[in-house]
Amino acid sequence: MNPDYAEKQAGPVLVVLSGGQDSATCLFWAKQQFTGPIHTITFDYGQRHLVELECAEKLSKKAGAEAHALIPVSSLSALSSNALTHKDVAVAGYGGMNGLPSTFVPGRNAIFLTLATAYAIPKGIKNIVIGTCQTDYSGYPDCRDEFIKSIQHALTLAMGSPVKIYTPLMFMTKAQTFRLADKLGVLEEVVKNSHTCYEGDHENLHAWGYGCAVCPACELRQKGYEAFLEGR
Amino acid sequence: MNPDYAEKQAGPVLVVLSGGQDSATCLFWAKQQFTGPIHTITFDYGQRHLVELECAEKLSKKAGAEAHALIPVSSLSALSSNALTHKDVAVAGYGGMNGLPSTFVPGRNAIFLTLATAYAIPKGIKNIVIGTCQTDYSGYPDCRDEFIKSIQHALTLAMGSPVKIYTPLMFMTKAQTFRLADKLGVLEEVVKNSHTCYEGDHENLHAWGYGCAVCPACELRQKGYEAFLEGR
Repeated sequence: MNPDYAEKQAGPVLVVLSGGQDSATCLFWAKQQFTGPIHTITFDYGQRHLVELECAEKLSKKAGAEAHALIPVSSLSALSSNALTHKDVAVAGYGGMNGLPSTFVPGRNAIFLTLATAYAIPKGIKNIVIGTCQTDYSGYPDCRDEFIKSIQHALTLAMGSPVKIYTPLMFMTKAQTFRLADKLGVLEEVVKNSHTCYEGDHENLHAWGYGCAVCPACELRQKGYEAFLEGR
Repeated sequence: MNPDYAEKQAGPVLVVLSGGQDSATCLFWAKQQFTGPIHTITFDYGQRHLVELECAEKLSKKAGAEAHALIPVSSLSALSSNALTHKDVAVAGYGGMNGLPSTFVPGRNAIFLTLATAYAIPKGIKNIVIGTCQTDYSGYPDCRDEFIKSIQHALTLAMGSPVKIYTPLMFMTKAQTFRLADKLGVLEEVVKNSHTCYEGDHENLHAWGYGCAVCPACELRQKGYEAFLEGR
């Protein structure tokens, strides 16, 4: 349960940073756990709200990351669109930032981890941190610990070089994630610089962060914060 | 060594089709081995020569595939470009078809198989065929059988649904790949409708296919064809 190590881990680390609370917390965790420089990678797959990408970049700077890569993943929207037929081979390319149809694709973590590894290894980075969490995985099987262990092995074989994937939040509740940020001394940083709200509300600031306070993502975050306060 | 099954495999199948000789042969192999409809998927990652993508589409039609998907993979060029710094966060997007810098990324087969699986599973396709070949893998570890078996397991966990990856050419030489096409009765189809030449020469037709006859890819293909003729 405790993602801490007695000693710092050697070497540089790449943090998969969405700009949300979980990956923001992972970023500061990585900063404390690794000796080497921190790199961040954010995937731009047509998120509905640009603010997530802005949060990711801002967080990366605040954590003193050496480099921040914004990687466009046009394939996600293409994969989830209807099958293209011979009669009309249209390429479902990468469109604008807003108003895109849902680009959810099963296996998204598998795609992100594979891309992150392909980015990391040529730079000599063997450690990858991702905020995947089994506790509230909402039925997505690629959030589970069993999957992470398996893809770590497959990617090590793919690269011919050891890859280690760290998931400090794997067995944490949202309240515990707030607690980790608090323990790391970055609670305010995480609360104010991460984005969760499905509605893209980044104007209304609450104790638990920005958001509409109504959508399911805000509800989860708010409840987690309240549980964290109770257990403090 | 023999990739044949005594009985046809049930269900639909997705063939990862680059437009080269190997994937073209795999396509016709899949047509013979599976009872269900054939789907094809081609990744457009800024190949130097458009003719490969054209070959893939043409082959898909010739094999009577039900659908052909052309998926843009902008992330490959972004991943292989220099690290983007905070000072100048530029997005290395997907450019034109020609004259792009090399977009080779280690772990490319890992990326393609993950994307192919994310495309296939929502369509109810559990079988994926790829022309990966360990015999002349040129030092890319993600061409090896050990990797394929490992990623098959990881992707099965990622999707929460069994995925089966077929690599009929895994232990074949180029001569044996020609022999397989011959046995399947599609030697001429494969020779005339696939593209291998690094120089993009698709005008000069030889017994072994189109190409400049000088570049390493043409040399390999030509030698393979000659070895096939000798062993015929």
